[in-house]
Amino acid sequence: MAELSAESGVPVATIKYYLREGLLPAGERTSPNQARYDEGHVRRLKLIRALVEVGGLSVATVREVVAAVDSDEPAYHVLGVAQRALTGFAADVPEDEREWAMETLSALARKHGWKFGPDNPVAPSLVGTMCTIRALGHEALLDQLGRYAEIADRIAEADLDTIDASVPMDRIVEAAVVGTVLGDRLFEGLRRLAQAAETARRYPDGR
Amino acid sequence: MAELSAESGVPVATIKYYLREGLLPAGERTSPNQARYDEGHVRRLKLIRALVEVGGLSVATVREVVAAVDSDEPAYHVLGVAQRALTGFAADVPEDEREWAMETLSALARKHGWKFGPDNPVAPSLVGTMCTIRALGHEALLDQLGRYAEIADRIAEADLDTIDASVPMDRIVEAAVVGTVLGDRLFEGLRRLAQAAETARRYPDGR
Repeated sequence: MAELSAESGVPVATIKYYLREGLLPAGERTSPNQARYDEGHVRRLKLIRALVEVGGLSVATVREVVAAVDSDEPAYHVLGVAQRALTGFAADVPEDEREWAMETLSALARKHGWKFGPDNPVAPSLVGTMCTIRALGHEALLDQLGRYAEIADRIAEADLDTIDASVPMDRIVEAAVVGTVLGDRLFEGLRRLAQAAETARRYPDGR
Repeated sequence: MAELSAESGVPVATIKYYLREGLLPAGERTSPNQARYDEGHVRRLKLIRALVEVGGLSVATVREVVAAVDSDEPAYHVLGVAQRALTGFAADVPEDEREWAMETLSALARKHGWKFGPDNPVAPSLVGTMCTIRALGHEALLDQLGRYAEIADRIAEADLDTIDASVPMDRIVEAAVVGTVLGDRLFEGLRRLAQAAETARRYPDGR
């Protein structure tokens, strides 16, 4: 375990915690107080750390995600499970509010060729976010939904190109998880820098 | 407090917790066991709830953000504090990795007219994310940085239009916070739907 810690850069106490929490599979026991860990363990440790520390996911969410990655289910099923775990839960909103948001979203989806079934976790989460924004009186954000949707189509093309390019089949689910979690963080950061620049352009007097 | 709870939809126990944690200012005491709360309290409660439940922020982060919103500092300063609180911390990465990421990011910033000083919290956070993605062997995601940067410029224009349109001066900081936190969630959701549609277009056989 000391070697695993040195190799992965993760402290021993943290490794023990991940083992206890079922995020990391146990090593192969070679003696009462020794176990063998392999490249797979190092890789998994780096993934867990990235999802927790950079992605900001909870340990419980990471547990669900790695269980899905490790399962023998077909890739599209695993991706569904992972996406469900990664999607924020739906806010509790009044029925008529929900109806308005669902209609708005459905119209947008028709226009852009997006499909979502009743099982899709993204739609309820989006509906909750839209209702919350409206309840806070920031409708101006929702006025831009059409532009945001067009931009979403463009970024999804770039996202899919990252999968096409180089990922071997047996790592496609992991790549999709990393792409989703760290891809969100990456784009958030770029968006902040671009917002600051656009703010400076519009308000050069520093308002 | 029962009225405040009914008006805001936040349970009494949660309101007491927010008061104890310093997220919500105390009401004006009118008798030993009664206090008067006003529209500002209802508004603040909705904001806190949105940031915690939809935005996924910790109570500690929300405390920092509302303290910034409430301060008498100039708007640009407050926005800086809020942005620092909202930005994920920088991952711990080796020096040579950090150098590579910083150079890549600086080149991108020059091209797009983005500026960031040594105090800017976004750049270190982005650098950490880039290094983590690379350490996980998902460089394909970084190959698209140029496209992501162009898309970031476009979304920042839409973002700034939401501020221009309708927000009175005294609520501009709150609007920027809501726009940042809920705007990220909103776009994440749209991106998921667009990714699913693009995946179906590219892999119609359900791979």
